[in-house]
Amino acid sequence: MMSVAFLGIGWFLADYIRGQGKQVDTGSTMPLSQAIPPQHDTSPTNLQAAWADFKAVVGEENISTTDDDLTSHAGSEWSSYPSLPGDRPFAVIKPGSTEDVSKIMKICHKRRIPVTAYSGGTSLEGHFAATRGGICIDFSRMDKIFKLNKEDLDVVVQPAVGWESLNEELAEQQLFFPPDPGPGAMIGGMIGTGCSGTNAYRYGTMKDWVLSLTVVMADGTVVKTKQRPRKSSAGYDLTRTFIGSEGTLGLVTEAVLKVTPLPQNTRVAVCTFPTIRTAADCVFSVVGAGVPIAAIEILDDVQMRCINDSGTTRRSWQEVPTLFFKFSGTPTAVKEHISMVQGLAKRSGSKTFEFAKNKEEGDELWSARKEALWSVMAKKRDASDHVWTTDVAVPISRLADIIGETKDDISKSGLVGSIVGHVGDGNFHAIILYNDAEHDVADRVVHRMVKRAIEMEGTATGEHGVGIVKRDYLPHEIGQEAVDLMRKMKQAFDPLCLLNCDKIVRVQQPKPGEVQEW
Amino acid sequence: MMSVAFLGIGWFLADYIRGQGKQVDTGSTMPLSQAIPPQHDTSPTNLQAAWADFKAVVGEENISTTDDDLTSHAGSEWSSYPSLPGDRPFAVIKPGSTEDVSKIMKICHKRRIPVTAYSGGTSLEGHFAATRGGICIDFSRMDKIFKLNKEDLDVVVQPAVGWESLNEELAEQQLFFPPDPGPGAMIGGMIGTGCSGTNAYRYGTMKDWVLSLTVVMADGTVVKTKQRPRKSSAGYDLTRTFIGSEGTLGLVTEAVLKVTPLPQNTRVAVCTFPTIRTAADCVFSVVGAGVPIAAIEILDDVQMRCINDSGTTRRSWQEVPTLFFKFSGTPTAVKEHISMVQGLAKRSGSKTFEFAKNKEEGDELWSARKEALWSVMAKKRDASDHVWTTDVAVPISRLADIIGETKDDISKSGLVGSIVGHVGDGNFHAIILYNDAEHDVADRVVHRMVKRAIEMEGTATGEHGVGIVKRDYLPHEIGQEAVDLMRKMKQAFDPLCLLNCDKIVRVQQPKPGEVQEW
Repeated sequence: MMSVAFLGIGWFLADYIRGQGKQVDTGSTMPLSQAIPPQHDTSPTNLQAAWADFKAVVGEENISTTDDDLTSHAGSEWSSYPSLPGDRPFAVIKPGSTEDVSKIMKICHKRRIPVTAYSGGTSLEGHFAATRGGICIDFSRMDKIFKLNKEDLDVVVQPAVGWESLNEELAEQQLFFPPDPGPGAMIGGMIGTGCSGTNAYRYGTMKDWVLSLTVVMADGTVVKTKQRPRKSSAGYDLTRTFIGSEGTLGLVTEAVLKVTPLPQNTRVAVCTFPTIRTAADCVFSVVGAGVPIAAIEILDDVQMRCINDSGTTRRSWQEVPTLFFKFSGTPTAVKEHISMVQGLAKRSGSKTFEFAKNKEEGDELWSARKEALWSVMAKKRDASDHVWTTDVAVPISRLADIIGETKDDISKSGLVGSIVGHVGDGNFHAIILYNDAEHDVADRVVHRMVKRAIEMEGTATGEHGVGIVKRDYLPHEIGQEAVDLMRKMKQAFDPLCLLNCDKIVRVQQPKPGEVQEW
Repeated sequence: MMSVAFLGIGWFLADYIRGQGKQVDTGSTMPLSQAIPPQHDTSPTNLQAAWADFKAVVGEENISTTDDDLTSHAGSEWSSYPSLPGDRPFAVIKPGSTEDVSKIMKICHKRRIPVTAYSGGTSLEGHFAATRGGICIDFSRMDKIFKLNKEDLDVVVQPAVGWESLNEELAEQQLFFPPDPGPGAMIGGMIGTGCSGTNAYRYGTMKDWVLSLTVVMADGTVVKTKQRPRKSSAGYDLTRTFIGSEGTLGLVTEAVLKVTPLPQNTRVAVCTFPTIRTAADCVFSVVGAGVPIAAIEILDDVQMRCINDSGTTRRSWQEVPTLFFKFSGTPTAVKEHISMVQGLAKRSGSKTFEFAKNKEEGDELWSARKEALWSVMAKKRDASDHVWTTDVAVPISRLADIIGETKDDISKSGLVGSIVGHVGDGNFHAIILYNDAEHDVADRVVHRMVKRAIEMEGTATGEHGVGIVKRDYLPHEIGQEAVDLMRKMKQAFDPLCLLNCDKIVRVQQPKPGEVQEW
C-alpha cells in the first residue's frame, strides 16, 4: 500500500521513505549522498502522449521535432560543454504566453518530463544541454515589449526580447538598459545567468536591473515576485532568487526591468601598456581612486591582434596590452574624470593615451570590444577548431596577479588564447582556440585559471554562470554546506527535478573520474 | 512503527504522512492549508535541560533570565506590534562566535526549541517578538570589525557592529558604508530587514552592500554564501536570499560588506513648498531628470514642527512641507547639480531654497532628519502614548498622490502624525502618535496607507520589513502563490520552524478575526 502511494514522489521524499532520510527531513541542507536520481519518464509512449497534450496548448505549428532544431536547442559551437549525442530534447515547444508555459509545465509535471528553457542560446557553459532529454521550451514567440513606464523608469518585457533591440526602442525616449552581455543574448537567458557586461562597473549587473519577475514554477504555478516599487523589504527576495538560477528554479515569462536616462556625453579613450600587469595595475589604481568612469576594459596583445586580423574595425591597433575607457556625464564631469585617469595611467606606466575622435569612432571601438569572442572565432584554422570562452572574478587587489599568471599559463600551453574583460569588477575572460586533440590542454588551462581565482578568494564565474562545466567548482568556492543548501532550495522549488536538471548543482553522484581533481 | 519513526519530523512532512500531502510533496509552493503547526517543545523540563546545554557552550555569565532582559529582548516601546504577555523568551543567550551559535542551534534543533535573534533591537514591526517562547540569541558579544580590506573596498564584521560606529572607523580611512537606517541599528538586524535610509537613492539599500555572509542554519550547519569577489554568477544568490529574511532562514554571524570612498564635497540644501503635493511633485521631476543627487528627503509641516518643538537643532524651521537635499561629488559637479535642482524646484512651486552655511550646519540639519522618530516620540503627552512608525513605497509616479491622500487621511483621523521619507525611492514613513484608546484609529490609518500603496503597484514596506504586523498584506501585494513559495522556502531551510517562527509568512491558520479585512 505505502509503496504505491509513494510512487514518483521525487528524489527527496523517496529517499526519506527508503529510511535513510531521518536526518535529512529536519535538516537545512541536502547533501548529495541523501539525494536519489530523479525519476523522469521519457519513455516513447509517455512522450507521444505528451506531444498530443502540447499540441492542444500551442498548436502543431509551434512544436518542432526536426533534427536541426533539436540540435541547435541543445548546444552551440561557442559552448565549452561538448554536447553528448544523447543530450537532445525530443521536441522544441514554442509557447505564446505565460498561460501556455503554465499549461506545458503542468503536463510535464504530471508526466515527469524534464525541461530546458531557451531564449538567445548565447550561454557558454552547457546551460541548455538537454542532459535528460525531455522538451525544450523556446521562448522566441514571447518577444514583446509590453509597456514602458517612462515616468517610473521601468519597462515590462517578455523573455525573448534582446537587450540590443530593447535599447534601440529605449533610445527613442532617451533611455537605456545597461546590462550588455554578448550580442544576441535575450532577457530570459540574461536573467538566468545573472549576466553583466561592460557597463557593470558603473551600473551593476543584471541582478541590479530587474524589478520583478513572472515565473512559472515546475508544477505550473505562476508566481509574480513583486509589484513595481523601486525598493521593497516585503518578504524574501524572490526576484533575486530567480536571477542567476539558470532555469533550474522556475521559467521566467515576464520581467519588469529598470531603465535609466541615456548618458548625455560619452567619450571613449584607449591607453596602451608595456605589459598586461602594468595595465592591470592601472585598473587597480583607477578603481581605488573611485573615479566614476562608465567602463574600463582590458584587452591583451593577442586580443588586439585578433581584432586587427578580423578586420572588424577600420583602423588598425597596436598589438599590445590595452585598456579601453568609457567616460560619461556632464561635459565638465567627463573632463575631470579623463584628466584624473590620464594621470593615474601615466603613473602606472602607460605608453599612449588617445581618444576616439568622434562618436562614430568611439562606437566602432566599443563594438570591437564587444566582438572579441567573434574575432577570436574568426581565427579558427579549420572546422575542427573550437573556441573556449571562460570567465572568473577576483577581489580587485588580486587582479594583476591572476591576469599575469593566467597569461603566462596560456603562453606556456602553446595555445592561442586572449585575455579580455570587465576589469573594473575584477572580472575577466580567457578566449582559447583549440582543436579536438588540444581539448585536454585547454581544459587544464581553464581548470588552473578557475583554481587560481578561487584560491584568491574569487569566483569560478563572474558573469557566465555555472551550467554544467563549472558545477564541480562550487564546493571549492563556497564550501560543501553552501552547495548542499542550494540543493535544498532546488529540491523545494522543483521536487521532481524537471527544470534544467543537472545544472548548477548535481542531483546524483558523479561517475568515477567525472570530477576533475582539485 | 511508522508513527514512531515520524515523530517530530516537522510541519511539512508530518502533513504528508497524515495523507493530505500527495499534491504538496511534488509541488513548488506550500499553501497554508497544507502546513500544520510547528511542534516545538518548550516544556519546563526540556528548557531546564537545555539551559545546562547552553551553559556548557557560553558559560552561565552569558545566559540571562532576568525579567528586564526577557522583556527588552521581546519588544520595544517604538514597535508597532503590541507584545503579548506570553511573547517572551525563557532565556537570553549571548554567544561569542559562529561556533557558539552553531552549537546553540544544534541544541535547539535537537530539543525543538524556537529561537529569535537580537542585535540592535530597533526594528518596528514585531520582528523579535517571542511568539513561541524559546530562547533569544543576543549577538552583543559579537561586535568586532575583523578586517578592513582597504584595497578591495570591503570590510569583515560581526552582527553586533553598529552602522554608526562602523562609519566612525571607516572615516579614518576616508571610507564609508552607505546604508543609514535608524540610530542604534546593527549589521545583523540591518541584514535581517534589508534596510536602507537616506543614502539609498544614490547608493542603494543594504541589499546592495553585502558581499557575503556566514550564516548558521536552523540545524546548526554553518554556510558561507560567497567569497569576496565584487561580482559572481556562481550558483543561487544565497547572500541575497538571507538579506531581508528577518532571521527566519538563518542566523547571520559574520558579514563581508562593501565600502566606498567618502564623498569629497557634500552640501545640504533645504527647500520649502506651499503643499506636500507640490513638494512630492518636485521629487518626481528631480528623479525624472536623473540628477545624480546624493539624497532627497521629504518632511511635512507636522514633522518640521516636531523638530522645532524637540529642540534637537539650534535653528528653528518654517513649519511647512520641506525637502532636504544632499549633494556630493567634485566641487564642479555639486555646483552643476545644485543649479539643476534649483531650477526644477522653482518650477514645482518652491518658496525658498537655502543652503546649510557650513559642514556643521549641514550635519546638524541631516541629524535632525535622522531624529524624526525621536522628535515625534518627544511629543508624547504621557506614558500611555505610543508612536507608530510605518513605511510604504510606490512607483515614483504615484508618490504625490499617495503622500497627499495619506496626509489628508491622518488629518481627518484627528491623530498627530507626520510624513517623512526617502522619497527619491518612492519610499516614505508615517509617524503617528496614539494612546491605547486611539489604537484602532491609528491601526486603520496605517491599514489604509498600506492598502493605498499596494493598489498603486507599490509595497507594504520599503525598508522596515514585514515582521508580524505586515505579514497579512503580503498576499495582497504579491499574490498568494508568491507567499506560498516563500513558505516553501522557509520550510526547506527550517523544517522545524525554529527560527523566528510566525514572521514574514504564517505557518498556521490565523484565528477568526485575526486578519483585517482588505
